[in-house]
Amino acid sequence: MSAGTTPRVLALSGGIGGAKLALGLYKTLAPHQLTVVANTADDFVHLGLHVSPDIDTVTYTLAGINNPETGWGRAGESWHFMQALEGLGGETWFSLGDKDLATNVERTRRLSVGESLTTVTARLAGALAIQARILPMSDQRVSTVVETSDGPIPFQEYFVKQQCRPAVTGFRFDGAEHAQPNADFLHCLADPDLAAVIICPSNPYISVDPILSLPGIRQALADCAAPVVAVSPIIGTDSIKGPTAKMMRELGVESTAASVASHYAGVIDGFVVDEQDDLRLLPNELTALSTPIMMRSLDDRLRLAQEVLQFCEDIARCGTR
Amino acid sequence: MSAGTTPRVLALSGGIGGAKLALGLYKTLAPHQLTVVANTADDFVHLGLHVSPDIDTVTYTLAGINNPETGWGRAGESWHFMQALEGLGGETWFSLGDKDLATNVERTRRLSVGESLTTVTARLAGALAIQARILPMSDQRVSTVVETSDGPIPFQEYFVKQQCRPAVTGFRFDGAEHAQPNADFLHCLADPDLAAVIICPSNPYISVDPILSLPGIRQALADCAAPVVAVSPIIGTDSIKGPTAKMMRELGVESTAASVASHYAGVIDGFVVDEQDDLRLLPNELTALSTPIMMRSLDDRLRLAQEVLQFCEDIARCGTR
Repeated sequence: MSAGTTPRVLALSGGIGGAKLALGLYKTLAPHQLTVVANTADDFVHLGLHVSPDIDTVTYTLAGINNPETGWGRAGESWHFMQALEGLGGETWFSLGDKDLATNVERTRRLSVGESLTTVTARLAGALAIQARILPMSDQRVSTVVETSDGPIPFQEYFVKQQCRPAVTGFRFDGAEHAQPNADFLHCLADPDLAAVIICPSNPYISVDPILSLPGIRQALADCAAPVVAVSPIIGTDSIKGPTAKMMRELGVESTAASVASHYAGVIDGFVVDEQDDLRLLPNELTALSTPIMMRSLDDRLRLAQEVLQFCEDIARCGTR
Repeated sequence: MSAGTTPRVLALSGGIGGAKLALGLYKTLAPHQLTVVANTADDFVHLGLHVSPDIDTVTYTLAGINNPETGWGRAGESWHFMQALEGLGGETWFSLGDKDLATNVERTRRLSVGESLTTVTARLAGALAIQARILPMSDQRVSTVVETSDGPIPFQEYFVKQQCRPAVTGFRFDGAEHAQPNADFLHCLADPDLAAVIICPSNPYISVDPILSLPGIRQALADCAAPVVAVSPIIGTDSIKGPTAKMMRELGVESTAASVASHYAGVIDGFVVDEQDDLRLLPNELTALSTPIMMRSLDDRLRLAQEVLQFCEDIARCGTR
């Protein structure tokens, strides 16, 4: 990265897998260097509360208070609220732990008095002493609808209530067309000190595509000074976590890293695949890095973050852009 | 009570003290005989949630899940939500336990989709298998404002945040003038099978007066077929619980049962005082019952309820009405 400036790194992330690499980047870079843009198309209003699963997973992960077993929610969580709600005949298909609830109640309260989701997210991250910026992709509502063999299903109902059972035929991001991308996200993309844009190993269809679907974002990524690099969420033919591979098969796409790379064609300058995968299957012209991408330990996260940052630096130096 | 009908009993209640007698009545009467009208002028929106302290105290008490130590809230409560909220820099002066929160979230959600407070209260009571009716005094917002030497203070701020410290000069029930009394409350008062109206030993100024301030309620109480009897919240010169005596002193009123009886002049046909109090100090014309009114045990609650019901029957038979 160029000397004399503070290079900035922008990560695009969904939930669990994305947050793991974001943590590696956060611990590798200097404070304030990292900006994470989180998908908000999974957000929904539940029990009257504005729930932002991906923002919260990123926030809890960077704050070191995430639940390492589930990936989502807070460590040391308790469930007295949910148990009481069940006793009152309330809806219990979406789990909100007692501590996690504080985040959702406080967010909803702040939104209701007119704060933007960006401001609320910054305040909560600040209260948890996070020094990186976490930005919702937009302050306007964008809602993923999963098109399935059973008809269209709102995302959380598909994902949590129906546990991804219906076969996917496509996705819709309601509201994306008219949503304003986060202004700080756009500023960051236009920043001459931007050193790298990293698409975290999140689900391309439901975590990254909503971000890419915002007006002007694909163009801004094409125009930005920094290399754009994605990390595969697939090893072999399996998702590292979650329904990515299942969705790809249902969509009639090979569930491989190569398919993900093709999916990002026109957006990325480089692609990071697992060392088990055959680089020769990737699109010919694509610059690739082969390395272990499974992140089990904090060391894995740090090593992968460092390698991805180095890969971005190499691409920038070799002048692919 | 007249034979061949199902006599109905109506109790007017605030929070803790009122709920104790309501429980005695509930356990004494047959299921469905009892209707409890709860004060809602303590209700407020906190953290975006509609909090109804008196409804909940009555509900939890009748369901047998109230916290016997505090009087308010649920037994076996935990505070993980509040601790997490504190960690996020949220407002923590009003305590909402993890289980209690389920009630407040579910109520707020149901209100937001257009259910009335009456319906929501009935549903929650139903979920907790309560067979008595618990009615909010009104479905419209009425808000107690405490006039103090420091100026007017919204009720919960005075009561919880400032712990009743400022000296009281008066009370205002914002919205009462235009609020509709609960329709079932009015039906109950007009019911020929109504056998007794019992004003529970709640604070006359902040728990009972809001109910009496609703349009038409004083007249309906005067017109109703059944005797109206109040139980003193004062023994000697002290409140059994809470700030009643302090408020009376600040208002320049003797903090005695006799003062409470005078306060209810024109509304009540009978008054229940503690055996320690001198009956001769009560207004001359008032029919009184002298009995231990402190309710420490469930037996105390049952005995007092039975005595109060008998007292009402005696008044009805002697034809004071």
